[in-house]
Amino acid sequence: MKKKIKNVNAAILVIGNEILSGRTQDKNVSFISNWMNLNCGISVKEVRIIPDTEKVIISSVLELSKKYNYVFTTGGIGPTHDDITSKAISKAFKVNYQINKEAYKILENYYGKLNFNIPRQKMAKIPEGSKLIYNPSSAAPGFKIKNVFCLPGVPSILRSMIPNVQKFLIKGLITFSKNIYVNTVESKIAINLNKLQNIYKKKIEIGSYPFFKNGKVGVAIVMRSANKKIIDKCRAKLLKILKKDKIDIMDFE
Amino acid sequence: MKKKIKNVNAAILVIGNEILSGRTQDKNVSFISNWMNLNCGISVKEVRIIPDTEKVIISSVLELSKKYNYVFTTGGIGPTHDDITSKAISKAFKVNYQINKEAYKILENYYGKLNFNIPRQKMAKIPEGSKLIYNPSSAAPGFKIKNVFCLPGVPSILRSMIPNVQKFLIKGLITFSKNIYVNTVESKIAINLNKLQNIYKKKIEIGSYPFFKNGKVGVAIVMRSANKKIIDKCRAKLLKILKKDKIDIMDFE
Repeated sequence: MKKKIKNVNAAILVIGNEILSGRTQDKNVSFISNWMNLNCGISVKEVRIIPDTEKVIISSVLELSKKYNYVFTTGGIGPTHDDITSKAISKAFKVNYQINKEAYKILENYYGKLNFNIPRQKMAKIPEGSKLIYNPSSAAPGFKIKNVFCLPGVPSILRSMIPNVQKFLIKGLITFSKNIYVNTVESKIAINLNKLQNIYKKKIEIGSYPFFKNGKVGVAIVMRSANKKIIDKCRAKLLKILKKDKIDIMDFE
Repeated sequence: MKKKIKNVNAAILVIGNEILSGRTQDKNVSFISNWMNLNCGISVKEVRIIPDTEKVIISSVLELSKKYNYVFTTGGIGPTHDDITSKAISKAFKVNYQINKEAYKILENYYGKLNFNIPRQKMAKIPEGSKLIYNPSSAAPGFKIKNVFCLPGVPSILRSMIPNVQKFLIKGLITFSKNIYVNTVESKIAINLNKLQNIYKKKIEIGSYPFFKNGKVGVAIVMRSANKKIIDKCRAKLLKILKKDKIDIMDFE
């Protein structure tokens, strides 16, 4: 008997005043969301961006970890005073915030005994009972506790670590998508798109996104579903409708 | 007597499957956050990204509108079937979702009577009792109901509309910031930054953000406060510390 694959969902919790204040443009959300869908069939259903404030981190982690299968946090696991994620999550789950021996060894080995100063040692302090998420680019590991995965905020480091999260995850249904880019405005295709969405009800999610590029106006029509065949059928129907209505197709995949 | 200006806070609610799935990179959060701070002294304290799902929009809007002085929503006010923000917010506040006469006239005038089709008319349907947020770039207005401001998802349109939100807002304390970029790694300045943060306790928020640019490693030290003079004092102290520790300053402001 074929094992039935379930929907698996997740939330992303971005921890950082620099993102919230607008100083820094977040680049991790779209990366994690795409990566989790394509590699693990996990759908991100909610994202929160919160400040480096202990109380807020604790309440957000507890709420999201109850609501979703997994929570991925970014930011706040570095060596400076404003990196408080590990301590806050220890408090959230009521476990000790302490030196992890394996993390300590990894970091000591990476920096060398002479340069392994107190701020660097701080990066080995994580919630008791966590498992490490190895970091191939700058050694300091992330960690997993219960269904919460703590990753760094620097995008290049996060990207290097994400494959090491995979072994902890139950895989779900991948959402596939096909796009058609048309040379029109939304209001000219809205009625037909609505009809098409009604045919497929909850089997496909049809999105319509206007864009302006190189002086051209267009609409990206996005069809998303865990069922590839249904997307192909819907796409064929849509191409017919567009032809009938003489709407130029700029590009499609 | 000088009127005391208070802290005014806000949340941003990004409504859109395309952001959540990672297909589209959000560009509105950092823009709104910066704009609100610089022009209105309003601090964004939380951001949520949620799907185009009525129940989720309703519960998120109600929760955030209670928790913060203002809520700015982006996305879901266009002409297609997946634009459900206006209807969901009408339900959240238990008011009718109906044609706003002024919005109808604006749109009819913009498109011309002959081209004012049903999808375009849909953009005049908003929660009863809302006030319009005028749109100088593509006519379709946003709206304000209670402390919630609904804006479109297309960044260029949102940017053109944001000055029209200002008249509805109570102004708060602007957060000023100064940055110093140093040619070192976080762990070499962490102890001194921690000491500095302890001197200024809650008066200044000191952030430390590593960066990699053009093959160079560095740290941006960011000092944020509503009190410009205290930032200048803190900055002078920090410059002394860096000089003493022989840490190269790459740039500062």
